[in-house]
Amino acid sequence: MGKDGWYTEEWAGQGSALSLRLKDKVHDEKSPYQRIEIYETETFGTLMTLDGLVMVTDRDNFVYHEMMAHVALFSHKAPRRVLIIGGGDCGTLREVLKHDEVEHVDQVELDERVTRVAERFFPELCVANDDPRAHLYFQDGIQWVKDAAPGSYDIIIVDSTDPVGPAAGLFGEAFYADCHRALRPEGIVVGQSESPLFHTELIKAMHAALRATDFLDVATVHFPQCTYPSGWWSATLGRRDATLTSFREDDCRERSFATRYYNAGIHEAAFASPEFLFKALL
Amino acid sequence: MGKDGWYTEEWAGQGSALSLRLKDKVHDEKSPYQRIEIYETETFGTLMTLDGLVMVTDRDNFVYHEMMAHVALFSHKAPRRVLIIGGGDCGTLREVLKHDEVEHVDQVELDERVTRVAERFFPELCVANDDPRAHLYFQDGIQWVKDAAPGSYDIIIVDSTDPVGPAAGLFGEAFYADCHRALRPEGIVVGQSESPLFHTELIKAMHAALRATDFLDVATVHFPQCTYPSGWWSATLGRRDATLTSFREDDCRERSFATRYYNAGIHEAAFASPEFLFKALL
Repeated sequence: MGKDGWYTEEWAGQGSALSLRLKDKVHDEKSPYQRIEIYETETFGTLMTLDGLVMVTDRDNFVYHEMMAHVALFSHKAPRRVLIIGGGDCGTLREVLKHDEVEHVDQVELDERVTRVAERFFPELCVANDDPRAHLYFQDGIQWVKDAAPGSYDIIIVDSTDPVGPAAGLFGEAFYADCHRALRPEGIVVGQSESPLFHTELIKAMHAALRATDFLDVATVHFPQCTYPSGWWSATLGRRDATLTSFREDDCRERSFATRYYNAGIHEAAFASPEFLFKALL
Repeated sequence: MGKDGWYTEEWAGQGSALSLRLKDKVHDEKSPYQRIEIYETETFGTLMTLDGLVMVTDRDNFVYHEMMAHVALFSHKAPRRVLIIGGGDCGTLREVLKHDEVEHVDQVELDERVTRVAERFFPELCVANDDPRAHLYFQDGIQWVKDAAPGSYDIIIVDSTDPVGPAAGLFGEAFYADCHRALRPEGIVVGQSESPLFHTELIKAMHAALRATDFLDVATVHFPQCTYPSGWWSATLGRRDATLTSFREDDCRERSFATRYYNAGIHEAAFASPEFLFKALL
């Protein structure tokens, strides 16, 4: 917290920065993995930062969490077993468990402290943590997928931090090959894939890595995310044995749960590729 | 330019701010209407601010200008006569004039100095200013539309600053009623409509005002815009005598000119309404 009452994240290598006006700092700890800070902001509600980078705010996390969960789940005919890598704030887990078809979710987050802090300061994101279908593990997600029995999951969601440090391995071929093996036929892996404006090369590399590891179809979905670099974010999906061009549209329109960003129109629209990205991916 | 080498725009009333790292300030003047400043940034190229608010940067203006022009023009069967209100940086004009069907464009910008400064510092946005189809006027756009002969235009593009000060009148019923009269049958008015996240109420009010002035169909398109408040921006269209649900898709796919953001997939996708906005507009 600067002396001036603002939290500022400088967007690495992008000569730009986002600031949020603060009311108070309410928590600060160093876990074995990272520094976890919680602030009360003036207009974005509670803010969690990890090593000084915005992870989640009350005001805009709904877009990210809904898009990380529902696009993949409604793209799959029968998503019964789901694995979440990372996802420590539990917002994605909450969205996944809104699907009655889901029978079992393993969430593998490296840093238990992120989840414990989220339970305290973001209780609304953690409402599903006690769901009997939810199984929380605090260990290395890369190793988890390596050790997973073949065909264990229908969906793998990689809800990770930026591709530096421990998270870097979540964007590479070795990891995707393990995901492919751990997925059932027609299974889907979806990972957050940063900003289309700032990180076009990363998205390109993810497409190449997913194709190289035998995913039949690969696609990127786009959504606004005010407090992430450039305000524009993406997730990239790989599907084995099937394409990503259709989804359970009727189920989506008749869904029994509330969303704030996602709906059937957004599902289809999110796959539209801006011209520059379309060309970069040719 | 702060002493620290950053330009910062505090997003009014939103407790948040965007900063761009600067190399240099290269121009600063007070026109009769506003303060116009030009900076060289480290990673966003040249930046123009008006009264301290980001108007345009080299790096990300393509999204805004393409969406302001091409969505409306490809939604119309034969866009021959176009009016641009505001648009002083001439980026929208450039995109409009890429359409061979366009025979005549009037651009009515209040502040001639914005255009003269853009010609000097954003020459690539002004390449079409000498097109014989382009007619630049520097006067009040609200009065221009009031005085326009009925049925003068196929498309009216309101490429304005925020709805405060002189631009406030560009968002109200009196202005839209004049637009309706100045448009030919099946004509379209499109205006920038701020951030869906920050300014939901404004978008709601624009929809109500367009419906109240007899526009048959009203719709909002969404796009990322890194350097505008929240990084998520919109434009709202009203069409008289016809709906906005179809567009010249074949012409769009076979267009003779280059775009960087817009394409046929983006055209359709941009109309998708996030659930919270869909509900707000019911």
